Amino acid sequence: MYRSHNCGELNASHINTEVTLAGWVQKSRDKGFMNWIDLRDRYGITQLIFDESRTDKTVFELAKTLGREFVIQVKGTVIEREAKNKNIPTGEIEILVSELNILNAALTPPFTIEDETDGGEDIRMKYRYLDIRRNPVKNSLLFRHKVAMEVRKYLSDLDFCEVETPYLIKSTPEGARDFVVPSRMNEGQFYALPQSPQTFKQLLMVGGMDKYFQIVKCFRDEDLRADRQPEFTQIDCEMAFVEQEDILNVFEGLTRHLLKEIKGIEVEKFPRITYDYAMKTYGNDKPDIRFGMEFGELNEVAQHKEFSVFNSAELVVGIAAPKCGEYTRKEIDALIEWVKRPQVGASGMVYVKCNEDGTYKSSVDKFYDQEDLAKWAKVTGAKAGDMIFVLSGPADKTRTQLSALRMELATRLGLRNPEVFAPLWVVDFPLLELDEESGRWHAMHHPFTSPKPEDMALLETDPGKVRANAYDMVLNGNEIGGGSIRIHDKATQQLMFKYLGFTEKEAKAQFGFLMDAFQFGAPPHGGLAFGLDRLVAILGGQETIRDFIAFPKNNSGRDVMIDAPSVIDEKQLEELHIKLK
Amino acid sequence: MYRSHNCGELNASHINTEVTLAGWVQKSRDKGFMNWIDLRDRYGITQLIFDESRTDKTVFELAKTLGREFVIQVKGTVIEREAKNKNIPTGEIEILVSELNILNAALTPPFTIEDETDGGEDIRMKYRYLDIRRNPVKNSLLFRHKVAMEVRKYLSDLDFCEVETPYLIKSTPEGARDFVVPSRMNEGQFYALPQSPQTFKQLLMVGGMDKYFQIVKCFRDEDLRADRQPEFTQIDCEMAFVEQEDILNVFEGLTRHLLKEIKGIEVEKFPRITYDYAMKTYGNDKPDIRFGMEFGELNEVAQHKEFSVFNSAELVVGIAAPKCGEYTRKEIDALIEWVKRPQVGASGMVYVKCNEDGTYKSSVDKFYDQEDLAKWAKVTGAKAGDMIFVLSGPADKTRTQLSALRMELATRLGLRNPEVFAPLWVVDFPLLELDEESGRWHAMHHPFTSPKPEDMALLETDPGKVRANAYDMVLNGNEIGGGSIRIHDKATQQLMFKYLGFTEKEAKAQFGFLMDAFQFGAPPHGGLAFGLDRLVAILGGQETIRDFIAFPKNNSGRDVMIDAPSVIDEKQLEELHIKLK
Repeated sequence: MYRSHNCGELNASHINTEVTLAGWVQKSRDKGFMNWIDLRDRYGITQLIFDESRTDKTVFELAKTLGREFVIQVKGTVIEREAKNKNIPTGEIEILVSELNILNAALTPPFTIEDETDGGEDIRMKYRYLDIRRNPVKNSLLFRHKVAMEVRKYLSDLDFCEVETPYLIKSTPEGARDFVVPSRMNEGQFYALPQSPQTFKQLLMVGGMDKYFQIVKCFRDEDLRADRQPEFTQIDCEMAFVEQEDILNVFEGLTRHLLKEIKGIEVEKFPRITYDYAMKTYGNDKPDIRFGMEFGELNEVAQHKEFSVFNSAELVVGIAAPKCGEYTRKEIDALIEWVKRPQVGASGMVYVKCNEDGTYKSSVDKFYDQEDLAKWAKVTGAKAGDMIFVLSGPADKTRTQLSALRMELATRLGLRNPEVFAPLWVVDFPLLELDEESGRWHAMHHPFTSPKPEDMALLETDPGKVRANAYDMVLNGNEIGGGSIRIHDKATQQLMFKYLGFTEKEAKAQFGFLMDAFQFGAPPHGGLAFGLDRLVAILGGQETIRDFIAFPKNNSGRDVMIDAPSVIDEKQLEELHIKLK
Repeated sequence: MYRSHNCGELNASHINTEVTLAGWVQKSRDKGFMNWIDLRDRYGITQLIFDESRTDKTVFELAKTLGREFVIQVKGTVIEREAKNKNIPTGEIEILVSELNILNAALTPPFTIEDETDGGEDIRMKYRYLDIRRNPVKNSLLFRHKVAMEVRKYLSDLDFCEVETPYLIKSTPEGARDFVVPSRMNEGQFYALPQSPQTFKQLLMVGGMDKYFQIVKCFRDEDLRADRQPEFTQIDCEMAFVEQEDILNVFEGLTRHLLKEIKGIEVEKFPRITYDYAMKTYGNDKPDIRFGMEFGELNEVAQHKEFSVFNSAELVVGIAAPKCGEYTRKEIDALIEWVKRPQVGASGMVYVKCNEDGTYKSSVDKFYDQEDLAKWAKVTGAKAGDMIFVLSGPADKTRTQLSALRMELATRLGLRNPEVFAPLWVVDFPLLELDEESGRWHAMHHPFTSPKPEDMALLETDPGKVRANAYDMVLNGNEIGGGSIRIHDKATQQLMFKYLGFTEKEAKAQFGFLMDAFQFGAPPHGGLAFGLDRLVAILGGQETIRDFIAFPKNNSGRDVMIDAPSVIDEKQLEELHIKLK
């Protein structure tokens, strides 16, 4: 062992102890006759002192040659510091060094290894191993480990069994694009990397495993939007002999446990709202409920007046922005411009100032009197001093636009405090959604999700209205988990594939093994999956997942540190029976 | 929830309780007026009773329709059993059923769901979800989970941080064959699936993570020998600022912990032997030391007599098979035939019976007198009643042959008790081994292993003699883990690549990122990796890993259950810029 202690543990109780430390040179302050060096390791920083009058000359001179990020080992005595630093645990002491051993030299790092670095995203990714030395990244990785361990302990204690499912599986055209792996031993054939262990966990239920979980890498070959990774980690779970209620309870329990253990926060029972309610109230199936600004539908009180824009709209809907009544004309105009940007796409916006004296001042005073506007205030829940913003147009589109505005206002108003946690369940998702492009119905969750029995009859007549036993856990405006009760009989599963446009042959070729399995005594079952990357980022109070992944890829799916993907040998291609186009 | 209790928890204390159970019909005994059904779930078996005089007629009749593996839910009262079964925890009670609900019917399974099944390997793999219902497989998966959890807890408590390293990495020709993944977004380029997270864990050490571990899938596209899988699981570990001794201590601690927690067995400090000693004493670098039969080298005492076979041999070496002195001529001949099979390849074998009266009888009495043979007995440690077997020939080959015989004898003599655990460390492995085919030196462990400083000079003159800071943990004749202290400076790493026949350009293209990293302050570091599949199998007292893997592949790398790999769409190939040859 190169050390007797780490750089985070020495304090006044160790004074006069002989110690050996090893670590990196964080910085040095050379005053000529006296030289202080901050020695850093994963556990903290300890100050070393080299003193012309007390330190051996060779050691003293050698210390002057040390550069930033040199790896050194020192022996010395713990002494009391003259100028104590109350901000760090080792701030009462320093090490009077008697021996210095340079374990490795270091080139000057391309960016500073500090909490606030001068390195841009690209350079930090190329030298990720240096970036990891910085506290924000290092602590994020330690935090992730802590979360994952707590998840495992919690589920394990509830008799869940972690089962490793295979990574080399079968490609299915359903859903997102697969990454595939050419098989050398099976010419012309390919494995696929799993987008999720969905069918395997269902087979484990058929196999009687009863309660399964796995923290597992999944893969999707998608064009990468910001903050998406081609490989990502799921907390994947499945239970047999359960109804939706049982699953919600277990994983609400898990999340409450994490909030308590990791953040020290006690959360009340999670609210549960339906998908329809979420869309009507927040314009969004993953509402951020750390703040209000619920939608108020104004059709009844705003239509049938002289304002033709509202009269012709399918939906007129508003929100009351708290304490925004004092917005200047300029601020309001800027907001109107914001909603008119192509990313949001509103054609205009009406506003109503709710004055402190109980009167109203709106951009449509020509068409609405004070009594009308008072009704708007009532529907949107606006109070004196608030500002009501109103959008109108086709219902779905307008809700989406108002949802964007709601989130933007919350950000501007500081209502999205990352240290406040407001989880909820959204339930009763639609079973199917229409793909505008192909005109075909797709499974909103996946084709294994069971429809609500009472809605089964609607499958023939009004498929869009069929609700599923599907649910999402939402935390601070992010979907962090979702799942469903599954189909567990062959007939229903066959029917579902039919509705999704599979021929019988396609269904059999791709999922025959699952339907076969259902014939041999499949229990009722269901489950869910959490996105671990997102979950730890939110629990860590961050917006972006990247610092919680040790070696992330960029938006082109490249690892710029190791420079992958890369070309491979002609011989490899040959063995795999493929060639480049 | 479909149940109030599981099928393993009810006992006499629950008598008169109303319960709801759900599970699979294990078997039924229909006596006409009385019908007993064993209901099974993951947790156990509970007996149900349907009694013509006490059970509702509809329920009674319905119960008669139940086939094996039907999934049912029952309500009923816990009552005392007349004929108690002391072999199962629920053996004191049964359930007098009042309600019966068939949750799913089942086809007759293609093999019996019993501990000893009538199903062959192939059919069990095709219907793996049924195989998992059998106790031996189910319990193996639960056992694996338990081992993995204990590993995580132990390492976590020692401040090891589990870090997920990427699965989509870069292909390197060094070592075994990679599985590769064509990149859609980077035309003509490929990712590789990791054979191990080796370089990433070293970069984590450069990044200051200090103590890393990960239970992680690794991939090797090898021709599959028996009991190998193309995807396998490693317990991967790395530590900074350590010497070999530190690593051995930590992972010896882990293994002792597992043996104690999982098996209830306390093990003494592990013996440590060198590679050279292992080869000389057991003919094997992963010796099974549950039993003796150490090699005795007989050159000194058996050469320079009249027996030309021995005189011309590089090595004459024997073992004393305990209590085999009474072997008949027929048994001995069979053993001689056994060592002469091509799989072993000896050209013959000499034997010496050690009679109870202290005399010897050998197959070479013509050449050796009693005094000679007494010396053989001394060297091999033979006692009265033992039999000495002697092989001769080229040293390495002969040792390998005698090692095979040693293991065979141990098996025949019942000395390989799976419930006895004899771990040890083998240390001081050679750095390099000669590839007979190419005549090139290969890294025995991997190219990142550091040579022993005192042997560095031999690299130029006698590379085969250079020892590495490399070590294996061996358990019951299996290598379950191996590792090394790594090179941590660029110059040595470059030198190593040169000795391994890399051009400077190749080294830079493949491992430039690692050598760059070494320039920015790499700490001394080292680690090891355990094969989890093998470890759990051995701890579970089994020879084969297959039952400890939920969904294993066959020897052609196929998953016969889901039928993967498989052909993929032309469209997929096109998007990936590849075509079939």
